[in-house]
Amino acid sequence: MVKLTKLIDNNCLVAPGEKSQLSKRATVADDILPDRQAANEATKENTKAIDALQDALWAEHHRALLVILQGIDTSGKDGTVRGVFNRCGPLGVCVTPFGRPTDEELAHDFLWRIHKAAPKKGVIGVFNRSQYEDVLVVRVRGLAPADVVEQRYEQINAFEKHLHDNGTRVLKFMLNISRDEQRERLQQRLDDPSKNWKFNAGDLEDRKLWDDYAKAYETVLDRCSTEHAPWRVVPADRKWQRNAIIAATVRKTLEDMAPSYPKPDWNPSDFKIT
Amino acid sequence: MVKLTKLIDNNCLVAPGEKSQLSKRATVADDILPDRQAANEATKENTKAIDALQDALWAEHHRALLVILQGIDTSGKDGTVRGVFNRCGPLGVCVTPFGRPTDEELAHDFLWRIHKAAPKKGVIGVFNRSQYEDVLVVRVRGLAPADVVEQRYEQINAFEKHLHDNGTRVLKFMLNISRDEQRERLQQRLDDPSKNWKFNAGDLEDRKLWDDYAKAYETVLDRCSTEHAPWRVVPADRKWQRNAIIAATVRKTLEDMAPSYPKPDWNPSDFKIT
Repeated sequence: MVKLTKLIDNNCLVAPGEKSQLSKRATVADDILPDRQAANEATKENTKAIDALQDALWAEHHRALLVILQGIDTSGKDGTVRGVFNRCGPLGVCVTPFGRPTDEELAHDFLWRIHKAAPKKGVIGVFNRSQYEDVLVVRVRGLAPADVVEQRYEQINAFEKHLHDNGTRVLKFMLNISRDEQRERLQQRLDDPSKNWKFNAGDLEDRKLWDDYAKAYETVLDRCSTEHAPWRVVPADRKWQRNAIIAATVRKTLEDMAPSYPKPDWNPSDFKIT
Repeated sequence: MVKLTKLIDNNCLVAPGEKSQLSKRATVADDILPDRQAANEATKENTKAIDALQDALWAEHHRALLVILQGIDTSGKDGTVRGVFNRCGPLGVCVTPFGRPTDEELAHDFLWRIHKAAPKKGVIGVFNRSQYEDVLVVRVRGLAPADVVEQRYEQINAFEKHLHDNGTRVLKFMLNISRDEQRERLQQRLDDPSKNWKFNAGDLEDRKLWDDYAKAYETVLDRCSTEHAPWRVVPADRKWQRNAIIAATVRKTLEDMAPSYPKPDWNPSDFKIT
């Protein structure tokens, strides 16, 4: 377990202040997770541990964990929620998907809706997309002036530092899939009737902008991987490797936080239940 | 499965317009669920089915399900969420606990915070406590004038009909435990250090009002079990029976709703993914 998270961090962590070199990063992790069955067993153990640790986090009621999932269409954000957080369940985990902003959200600064969805004490919050959309799709599609986008990287870093300094640990995962893998997953949505409803012709438009998105992601990784909230680029072509990497990292983070059950200020003998 | 839900409804359903006779209702269900292992296996199957049905409900994106859990302290509301809804996970299930109202909530009518938390299309909403607190604790503790409380039963019925008529099915479960079982569960919270944080001396005050709560619950069941949103009183002394009864009922309800994947208005051959 300790060995695995070490390997993961050697492979996936974007060292703060260094170039992320996204194009050189792997979309498979056969070197650190060669065996599917062993990986799935580790994930099972890790999700059990996450559940137990979240229970203590809730009892302690003092801090929170925010897990940010970013990645292009079909990269597996929903699948990660299922694979890593279902055991913890809807009591302990709160998922917020960020889609196209509403009129009310657009009438505020871009972090307004994000801050509102920050996890409360004791809870694991998961963002499916996040504040980073405002420097990804917004930049690629030119939805805001370049100088406005330019300011946002530092604003995001400051915001995440604020969360961190107020007791919320921030974990950021970019789910990195290959162009070929995305083609296969989109084709599945066309071919499998039970997946047809997930198909969105707009995804094909974004696919044409693959290189622009890659560039925008690279800038995010270069500028927003910080000591208090570093980015990890997760090889995500194989779902079981992706889940294993994220489950191990979440568990390790919660273990580092070491939430503890509060000590009661009473003795059992103080009470007689009739 | 059909046989079981039939048995459950014969035993648990409060027929609209009839007296609930709460004091005569069982807190164990050995007659309909004699075997623990068989019950747990049924629950496992049913939670899998709930997960699959919720996926279709989400894809359909047209209707919702609201599950209301009511019961005195330690009756197992959180445990029900874990036992019945964890497999469906935080993507498909949204749990809202209703505690003491905030100042802002008190500045509105009592259904304001409830309506705000109604599940959105495609989602299963679970209320841990609900609008019924406003005719339970509020009545028992005299937190509102009697004539105000008196109006609320019909207001709740009208509100639930509104939800129903707008596509949200409403399921209501009262978790029925015995006085002895509550003593044991409270004592556990005193004796087991990992459960100490759940102990709240105020629960003992409520326990002293056991008969008043029973009377208030009986009125709720008598007056608010309707065709569109009937109450079920669930024998809840044995957690595995409670979970089996609720999982079977939720599954049956979703099967009756029969959500379906939307048919695409395109052919796979319309698109070429390059």
